[in-house]
Amino acid sequence: MAILSFNPTLSSSPSSLSFPKHPQRVPHFAFFPSAPTPLTSPSSLSLYPKRIMPNSPSSRDPHVTRTSALIDPDGGFLTELVAPPSERDALRQEASTLPSISLKQIDLEWVHVLSEGWASPLSGFMRENEYLQCLHFNCLKMDDGSIVNMSLPIVLAITDQEKEAIGANESVALLGPSGGAVAILRRIEIYPHNKEERIARTWGCTAPGLPYVEEAITPAGNWLIGGDLQVIEPIKYNDGLDHYRLSPRQLRDEFDRREADAVFAFQLRNPVHNGHALLMNDTRRRLLEMGYKNPILLLHPLGGFVKADDVPLDVRMEQHKKVLEDGVLDPETTIVAIFPSPMHYAGPTEVQWHAKARINAGANFYIVGRDPAGMGHPTEKRDLYNPDHGKKVLSMAPGLEKLNILPFKVAAYDQVAKKMAFFEPSRSQDFLFISGTKMRNFAKSGENPPDGFMCPGGWKVLVDYYNSLQSEEAVVKTTVGA
Amino acid sequence: MAILSFNPTLSSSPSSLSFPKHPQRVPHFAFFPSAPTPLTSPSSLSLYPKRIMPNSPSSRDPHVTRTSALIDPDGGFLTELVAPPSERDALRQEASTLPSISLKQIDLEWVHVLSEGWASPLSGFMRENEYLQCLHFNCLKMDDGSIVNMSLPIVLAITDQEKEAIGANESVALLGPSGGAVAILRRIEIYPHNKEERIARTWGCTAPGLPYVEEAITPAGNWLIGGDLQVIEPIKYNDGLDHYRLSPRQLRDEFDRREADAVFAFQLRNPVHNGHALLMNDTRRRLLEMGYKNPILLLHPLGGFVKADDVPLDVRMEQHKKVLEDGVLDPETTIVAIFPSPMHYAGPTEVQWHAKARINAGANFYIVGRDPAGMGHPTEKRDLYNPDHGKKVLSMAPGLEKLNILPFKVAAYDQVAKKMAFFEPSRSQDFLFISGTKMRNFAKSGENPPDGFMCPGGWKVLVDYYNSLQSEEAVVKTTVGA
Repeated sequence: MAILSFNPTLSSSPSSLSFPKHPQRVPHFAFFPSAPTPLTSPSSLSLYPKRIMPNSPSSRDPHVTRTSALIDPDGGFLTELVAPPSERDALRQEASTLPSISLKQIDLEWVHVLSEGWASPLSGFMRENEYLQCLHFNCLKMDDGSIVNMSLPIVLAITDQEKEAIGANESVALLGPSGGAVAILRRIEIYPHNKEERIARTWGCTAPGLPYVEEAITPAGNWLIGGDLQVIEPIKYNDGLDHYRLSPRQLRDEFDRREADAVFAFQLRNPVHNGHALLMNDTRRRLLEMGYKNPILLLHPLGGFVKADDVPLDVRMEQHKKVLEDGVLDPETTIVAIFPSPMHYAGPTEVQWHAKARINAGANFYIVGRDPAGMGHPTEKRDLYNPDHGKKVLSMAPGLEKLNILPFKVAAYDQVAKKMAFFEPSRSQDFLFISGTKMRNFAKSGENPPDGFMCPGGWKVLVDYYNSLQSEEAVVKTTVGA
Repeated sequence: MAILSFNPTLSSSPSSLSFPKHPQRVPHFAFFPSAPTPLTSPSSLSLYPKRIMPNSPSSRDPHVTRTSALIDPDGGFLTELVAPPSERDALRQEASTLPSISLKQIDLEWVHVLSEGWASPLSGFMRENEYLQCLHFNCLKMDDGSIVNMSLPIVLAITDQEKEAIGANESVALLGPSGGAVAILRRIEIYPHNKEERIARTWGCTAPGLPYVEEAITPAGNWLIGGDLQVIEPIKYNDGLDHYRLSPRQLRDEFDRREADAVFAFQLRNPVHNGHALLMNDTRRRLLEMGYKNPILLLHPLGGFVKADDVPLDVRMEQHKKVLEDGVLDPETTIVAIFPSPMHYAGPTEVQWHAKARINAGANFYIVGRDPAGMGHPTEKRDLYNPDHGKKVLSMAPGLEKLNILPFKVAAYDQVAKKMAFFEPSRSQDFLFISGTKMRNFAKSGENPPDGFMCPGGWKVLVDYYNSLQSEEAVVKTTVGA
């Protein structure tokens, strides 16, 4: 994997930058590959799962023979697992005859993730063979001997009772929270769910208080069920945000439509401040300097499960919208979309998943910050992970060699320039670090952060959110006190 | 990795065996490779670390241009780290001027392991780059992009005080238990020792009571120190067993001398009973059936740290010796040697290390049993690992593809045939399982196990050992009572 390390504090001295002028893999993107490009092949549309072959024509307009220069999905094609409309009634009928498993919200988020091919080449919840490779090696070996990255177990737990009810059946129906069938899992395999081992190998920690563990593992059943997933219709949340939930295929189509020759992804689960914006804009500038003609930013907030004190998705999306409206980021070169995965807070293990899923969405550059997917240790007064391990592990990860990793130095508030800027150790006294906690305290107290920390429209969204929380708390307190 | 699964219960019906008649890699061993073979090259002997290039002439007799058909060491050559005699005085002198670290017994065992190239291509204790790859991926990526397996962290812990004393020095002296310098560690790198994460990712468990953890990690310092190891002279234990401690180079030379065209390794840390012997003899028979002319067994007991209730090394070696003297195994086709590694009891993670180290010693077949390197869970009434995971993970492990894995079914005492035999589920009532605990209880009580369980000479060694333990216990009790 090429690590394009750059020291933003040296930006006035381009010649000393370690950011390469000629990245090894530019040709892959700067020129169309030499492989012959087939014309539209309608027969391939009936393939199940749908295959987006690299360099195949876009599915958006079968009359245009346009090629895609985007990075290949892991395994060569997107594993899209939603059945065509013509088959849906029959699948619902079949599902009604099968033993069933009731999905929790996080399970449904994984069905969503799998259904759109974010986890390509997975074709469903992991069987034991995939689970063990994931736990021990953070990657899967393909039939041709090639390696794809796969660091988080994407598994479905069932109880002893559910296992018994399934008996010798080879397929099961998966029921959504409202009780209707959302998918069928076929050629199933049931194997033991050793929770302690799963947690230890995924988080490097078994202390109580890991949010995903408490939400989705500790209360879950003692068995895991893997198989091939067939999703009856696209997963929707009807929360007013579905238009942001672009699938990897939709994102790839949009990157192609904009004729992107580089796509750089920014994973986040927090509001965007001007330090983030500085970084994203600076990355685009550098990609242009490297010779790319049209780098597109994928601003890609995580939309699944987050811990209770994170800012909720709807508030974050409203805040991101304002950031674009206020002109902090350029809508012409930015796509804002929701990444539907739940959050593990598993640091170096999880950041690989975040990067790998973005390859499948067409990104060939990935920005990684300090302590990605990290959090405080649940029982000790320290970070759960060494903050540098995320980017180090990402740079070593088997199967991510084709992704260009962009580590960045932390941005802070420059009290002299009165704006967010890359931190310069030589004049550290000029910089003010505004942590998430400090930001929340500003917003809660109605106090304004320093000028230039965040665009006013975005800041107002946060203030309004925390005001509403305090109103709710006041109501709760009054009710409790009454 | 080719898994040569065979069902020993079907041995009377060769046609139904799944053990392949024509293994994929036979040509590699059955014929000498076509690469030109250099004549002896004395200049290469001065290389440090010494390199055994594949297919280079044996170092045993420079006048014979004999090639070796053995499997290549990981990384292409053995990293042998013992300095030539001519340099030893200068190294001792240099060591006396350096800051020093006092090695514990387990640290010294790792110095031994590293010094002889069992962990090739490691050239010393892991730096953070290797440590992180080991923890997260159980393998290391080489400069040429190839992968070698590396599942256990081979690291050296130091205390805050030792770190402070080292300061900005780039080399440190490593002192043996008697106080003398045994090695110099060069181009050192010091990084944090997150014990919780190391334990969780290595064992998949952080419960108290893991033997290696309690012995070597919990009491250890908060830092790890990596670097290139230069060992002043070969590590010796002077316990009467050093002649069994053959290095990978010595083993390779011996396999060459015997003109082995297949080497099958059997890792063990327990006495050999006739079930083991049956398996080893049966494996040789099958290798002959496959077309190998001279398969050699490496009976390779682990010689480093073991938990307190395991049978001590000297007793095991005496027992193994009797097994050969009693003709249960054929000395002509068997090499008994000590594998100097300490034991982690880390199940599927550790079995990879056991297999990988044997590649470096020249073995191309590895016999794996039920629950390799497993133990009971330290705080719960269950196995720590799923007993099948060891062989499954071994079959998936990156970097072990070139090793042929031989899983075996458990042997038990056949009360009809009055001998150890492969268990046949169809007549399970005929079989008696004699666990390690039951075997120890027989030996302690002076009761004889069923005829044919173990050769009489080997059994007597165990009885004598447990008698001596009971005498010791009696002395302790008398002393305490006095």
